[in-house]
Amino acid sequence: MTPDEFRRHGHALIDWIAKYFETVEQYPVLPAVKPGDLVRALPPSAPEHAEAFEAVIGDLERLILPAATHWNHPGFFAYFAITGSAPGVLMELVSAALNQQAMVWRTSPAATELEEVTLRWLARLMHLPDQVEGVIYDTASISTMHALAAARDAAVPGVRARGLAGRPDVPELRVYCSEQAHSSVDKAVIALGLGQSALCRIPVDLSFRMRVGELQDAIREDREAGRWPVAVVATVGTTSSTSVDDVAAIATICQREAIWLHVDAAYAGVMAIVPEFEWMRAGFDLADSIVVNPHKWLFTPFDLSVLFTRRMETLLQAFSVTPEYLKTPEAAAARSLMDTGVQLGRRFRSLKLWAILRYFGAEGIRDRLREHVRLAQLVGAWVDANPDFERVAPVPFSVVCFRAVPRGVPADAASLDALNGRILDRVNTSGEVFLSHTKLDGKYVIRLAVGNLRTQEQHVRRAWDLITGALRVEAP
Amino acid sequence: MTPDEFRRHGHALIDWIAKYFETVEQYPVLPAVKPGDLVRALPPSAPEHAEAFEAVIGDLERLILPAATHWNHPGFFAYFAITGSAPGVLMELVSAALNQQAMVWRTSPAATELEEVTLRWLARLMHLPDQVEGVIYDTASISTMHALAAARDAAVPGVRARGLAGRPDVPELRVYCSEQAHSSVDKAVIALGLGQSALCRIPVDLSFRMRVGELQDAIREDREAGRWPVAVVATVGTTSSTSVDDVAAIATICQREAIWLHVDAAYAGVMAIVPEFEWMRAGFDLADSIVVNPHKWLFTPFDLSVLFTRRMETLLQAFSVTPEYLKTPEAAAARSLMDTGVQLGRRFRSLKLWAILRYFGAEGIRDRLREHVRLAQLVGAWVDANPDFERVAPVPFSVVCFRAVPRGVPADAASLDALNGRILDRVNTSGEVFLSHTKLDGKYVIRLAVGNLRTQEQHVRRAWDLITGALRVEAP
Repeated sequence: MTPDEFRRHGHALIDWIAKYFETVEQYPVLPAVKPGDLVRALPPSAPEHAEAFEAVIGDLERLILPAATHWNHPGFFAYFAITGSAPGVLMELVSAALNQQAMVWRTSPAATELEEVTLRWLARLMHLPDQVEGVIYDTASISTMHALAAARDAAVPGVRARGLAGRPDVPELRVYCSEQAHSSVDKAVIALGLGQSALCRIPVDLSFRMRVGELQDAIREDREAGRWPVAVVATVGTTSSTSVDDVAAIATICQREAIWLHVDAAYAGVMAIVPEFEWMRAGFDLADSIVVNPHKWLFTPFDLSVLFTRRMETLLQAFSVTPEYLKTPEAAAARSLMDTGVQLGRRFRSLKLWAILRYFGAEGIRDRLREHVRLAQLVGAWVDANPDFERVAPVPFSVVCFRAVPRGVPADAASLDALNGRILDRVNTSGEVFLSHTKLDGKYVIRLAVGNLRTQEQHVRRAWDLITGALRVEAP
Repeated sequence: MTPDEFRRHGHALIDWIAKYFETVEQYPVLPAVKPGDLVRALPPSAPEHAEAFEAVIGDLERLILPAATHWNHPGFFAYFAITGSAPGVLMELVSAALNQQAMVWRTSPAATELEEVTLRWLARLMHLPDQVEGVIYDTASISTMHALAAARDAAVPGVRARGLAGRPDVPELRVYCSEQAHSSVDKAVIALGLGQSALCRIPVDLSFRMRVGELQDAIREDREAGRWPVAVVATVGTTSSTSVDDVAAIATICQREAIWLHVDAAYAGVMAIVPEFEWMRAGFDLADSIVVNPHKWLFTPFDLSVLFTRRMETLLQAFSVTPEYLKTPEAAAARSLMDTGVQLGRRFRSLKLWAILRYFGAEGIRDRLREHVRLAQLVGAWVDANPDFERVAPVPFSVVCFRAVPRGVPADAASLDALNGRILDRVNTSGEVFLSHTKLDGKYVIRLAVGNLRTQEQHVRRAWDLITGALRVEAP
């Protein structure tokens, strides 16, 4: 494709995307397709001869959009709602064009150093200690895997060289997290060879926070049984209810016991930027590692996850491998991003985060985060004011967990679960909104997550109208 | 940013990129910056107030380009030269705008199903068996880690649940690869808890291919010593010399011994598309898994690595974890990409590969791959014809390994290594080209890797002139 053709197609796509952004609210949030529809609409083999690029662009409209879930829609309230903001989208374009592979400094000084600068900016905004260093990965799952790998390195002598198998000197290992911690912790202990049974899930209190006393008991029992604690994963903003573990208390235990403390703040971590949320960062300064995902609640197109750690040298010791063909004269003077984990090549992800921090400014970010919290608390208040509904968890951030419990309809637990499932289906079928569910205390619960910059009060109000309307249909 | 502002900035950036593509040859391939230059040029903290997006665009020109290594430059001959082709760049823009997170089918039917279709296309182009299924990851390192995790699951009973530590029933484990295999295999065995000493590196023959007899011996000795073989990694296109292991012979051993065979074809795998390279895919049909990187030699902007496997069910068994909040009604009818590995969210990477396969067509891809091989063989012929140089390895694909051995200059091994290091530095300092090095048979070797679509015969000729010119200066 010549530069002139690139101009022509590029301008066409910019206009196409601008129109999509303008009209996104007109699409159903969840597309009206069934499994296999797109597969059946496409040929079974690649074309032998070149096709016009116009044909590809045409298929975006004809085939891809109708099968896309509209994460950009202001009515997207499922999982964690996110924003791929326009400045971030444009910087992904630039990143793809520059095609940097930041394995070592010389393969991209720009990507290596802009990552350092941007993460320093973010760390300061979040009031993290100065000695914290950061690294960008793709997802929180990979960030947590690397954090726990570093913890494993700190806990198990010689694990990098000798591994875990066939070693009578290494007993069963343990990682602790709450019952509400994310499934990425399971995946990490599976991948790292600790095994899923190494994950000790500590019960939670009535606000879905880890019971710290039970953590202490579990550690003591494990030590008495000869098992080695490797790490504790505390969560600030759990996936189901956005509950916040008592990181400060957990940190005290971890310090006393010399156990790595990893904080999963993938969703809520960015709220540390907002002064009135100072309470949530108590203990952050004592954490060995913290994961926060700008692609969740910092307006950054997927993917960009940040791992901050006070113990970068342990992570580097765990993963540095430099074959001859990657030796460079700058290795002593500059970080080689390849040393920070499994991945050798790294995309130029910092570019979008850098642009976003500048485009919105700290002040603009704080304002927008506060507005999301305000909208969620508004929904929480509507739930509380409606006797046919109950709120099932506190609303510390931008997610509301609730369910219908209609008056005058005697119902067992299973019927209530089924009713709420039907309400959720009915609401989602409208195409105007998309909410998801979870279970809390064994109850089926509807979640409404605010996180998209396009979402305004009218959208959460419409969601609430759809929910109350669905209840009237399902339990008249 | 309003859609109109997005249009304005988007058009500006498309023009900026088009101009960059037009003028990329005018930049030094390696930038003239020192470690720390970019860090020092940027403020220590994020701005408090929003900045104009024009300021960010201006800094791309002022700060980022001068610190970027120009992987787009036709004189980029280092590592593996790659191409972020224009159709791929434009589809990354679309992917960022749509911001799909393909965790489960309903969070992006488009990304889930287009990945299936596109990988079926690629598998057919590569003549892989019909029963092979594929999954897209970010990098070959992550693909190989997942392949070896699946192999571990197949070899070690209960490893997902019980891990490797504190298990008297699990002895030391072994993974085999050649001395020339990539460092990502080391990282995988480290991450998976096997330990780096579990990696048994088999010696190579004079063409840098794994000595299959020695593999057989190592497996036998390990079994006799009570160690368990987990996997063999065969390489098709090693990083240093692009040598090709005898996959068919290795596959025979793996079948007999019931050991997982993973083929690292990250670089050279795409050549299976070209009929006259049928020889290199002997044994592919018997591999349990194969990694191939379209971001290396299939014109795809970084990142996009493909893992093909005949044993997808083993990979799924190793990694499927479905918490309540990710349960969906379509889980039985459609693949959930989250089940294929550590990462929960997945970018819409297939979009760019789909567009590239259509834009170039199978025929166009074959022509361009053949041209890269022709250019490399041309350089190989120039090396062979020059008595002051020696070629150090065969040239099966698009990489030439050689070094200066000037006539009439008696030199010990260390002096020759130093001489070639100085030649490489001098050539790279020109700014016109960027080559890298490796060691083969203990000798310092210069590598010239062809892989960029902008690279023409004039560029490899200029590289060769610079190399011979540097020799005349360094060893007059």
